Amino acid sequence: MTRQNYKMTIAYDGTRYYGWEHQPNTDLTIQGKLENVLGRMVGKSVEVIGAGRTDAGVHARAMVANVFLDTNLTEKEILDYMNRYLPEDICICDIKKAGERFHSRYNALGKTYRYTCYVGAVKPVFDRKYVYVPEGRPDVEKMRMAAEFLVGEHDFASFCSAGSQAETTVRTIYDLAVEKNGEEIVIRVAGSGFLYNMVRIIAGTLMEAGSGRMAPEKMEEILAAKDRTAAGPTAPACGLVLTEISCE
Amino acid sequence: MTRQNYKMTIAYDGTRYYGWEHQPNTDLTIQGKLENVLGRMVGKSVEVIGAGRTDAGVHARAMVANVFLDTNLTEKEILDYMNRYLPEDICICDIKKAGERFHSRYNALGKTYRYTCYVGAVKPVFDRKYVYVPEGRPDVEKMRMAAEFLVGEHDFASFCSAGSQAETTVRTIYDLAVEKNGEEIVIRVAGSGFLYNMVRIIAGTLMEAGSGRMAPEKMEEILAAKDRTAAGPTAPACGLVLTEISCE
Repeated sequence: MTRQNYKMTIAYDGTRYYGWEHQPNTDLTIQGKLENVLGRMVGKSVEVIGAGRTDAGVHARAMVANVFLDTNLTEKEILDYMNRYLPEDICICDIKKAGERFHSRYNALGKTYRYTCYVGAVKPVFDRKYVYVPEGRPDVEKMRMAAEFLVGEHDFASFCSAGSQAETTVRTIYDLAVEKNGEEIVIRVAGSGFLYNMVRIIAGTLMEAGSGRMAPEKMEEILAAKDRTAAGPTAPACGLVLTEISCE
Repeated sequence: MTRQNYKMTIAYDGTRYYGWEHQPNTDLTIQGKLENVLGRMVGKSVEVIGAGRTDAGVHARAMVANVFLDTNLTEKEILDYMNRYLPEDICICDIKKAGERFHSRYNALGKTYRYTCYVGAVKPVFDRKYVYVPEGRPDVEKMRMAAEFLVGEHDFASFCSAGSQAETTVRTIYDLAVEKNGEEIVIRVAGSGFLYNMVRIIAGTLMEAGSGRMAPEKMEEILAAKDRTAAGPTAPACGLVLTEISCE
């Protein structure tokens, strides 16, 4: 048995978890659940390295992580073992051998998130854990106008909650689309990386523009202010899902 | 204030309920929740009459019910009141004044149900409460062959669980379709009405045919037997949703 690096893609319903990363005094984290099952599988403790972190209550359709394992099991056997013993709200979509130097965080080139607002006539009974229901009906066109100011490389200090340990608050947004999709308004954002709560603050600020409480052009001032209090509220976690991570 | 009959359409996630109908020693029924909120609204007890009953754990996208209310509120005000005070897993999609003689059960002409099996490669993280995961991969063509025998007017005694109080076990199935839809096998059945557990026993028996454990042609013998033990197992409630009720 030799030590082998594996790359995994993971989907989870984050509703009942305290986020991706280990937290003191709880085993309700995604990282914790994965390490638990893998540790039992190989008979010793392992470290799962995520390409990023998701906050408490945020979902993922394709989180990427890597882990070194000493095992004779095939990839398919590891996949089946994990999906059998992980709780029903966490799923390994894929696991493949990776080069020894592959590190999911250092090798991540970009991430894509989706934020979903339900704006139907009544209540989202079946999707209620995966959407946010804003008051009123945000104007999609105004949200789009506000979104345009954010695309490109900017200092996103205004879109970063306190507690971030990032060295710089400069990030690049490749694409930020707002679409009306039936009873939903869907915000899709792709970027090099995101600061703490950045996507949720962007979503909350776009909804301010959509509601008419804020002029779309104000986005420029908000960026320039480099001050969290200049931007809109942090949108609730339930509407957010990490949909893609591209790695080199 | 005059007494007015109202027709409602209701959607619910049945996961945590003991079914549509009142049960002793629990208020976790759909009927109970509706009567509770409406009773509080009008200040006296009311009776909500459903077009049918759903079992514990079964979902509905469009249950129909009627209720007589003494109120000066508009339809829109009643709708908003109910959706505000009902739990997040029950929603009133629509409420309209109905003729005094409208009775949702007597006026129901037909019902449509959908049963969903997840047959994807991994686990259905986000839809896990609304699908059933069968072992193996049922053969859709065999399920279709078996389904054909059930269409039309038949005595469905073999597809009725003990405890039914129906006067006759003869029912008419208008349509019974089996479709592969991405990672799902979807069974859609429309009929004049259904016996106790009938749709779930049909789904369970079609899966027996799909798995190869039962020849599709055996469906004819099962119908002729008029004996519950001749048919396949009752498929789990979570995969079932009432999708439509047509009323005269």
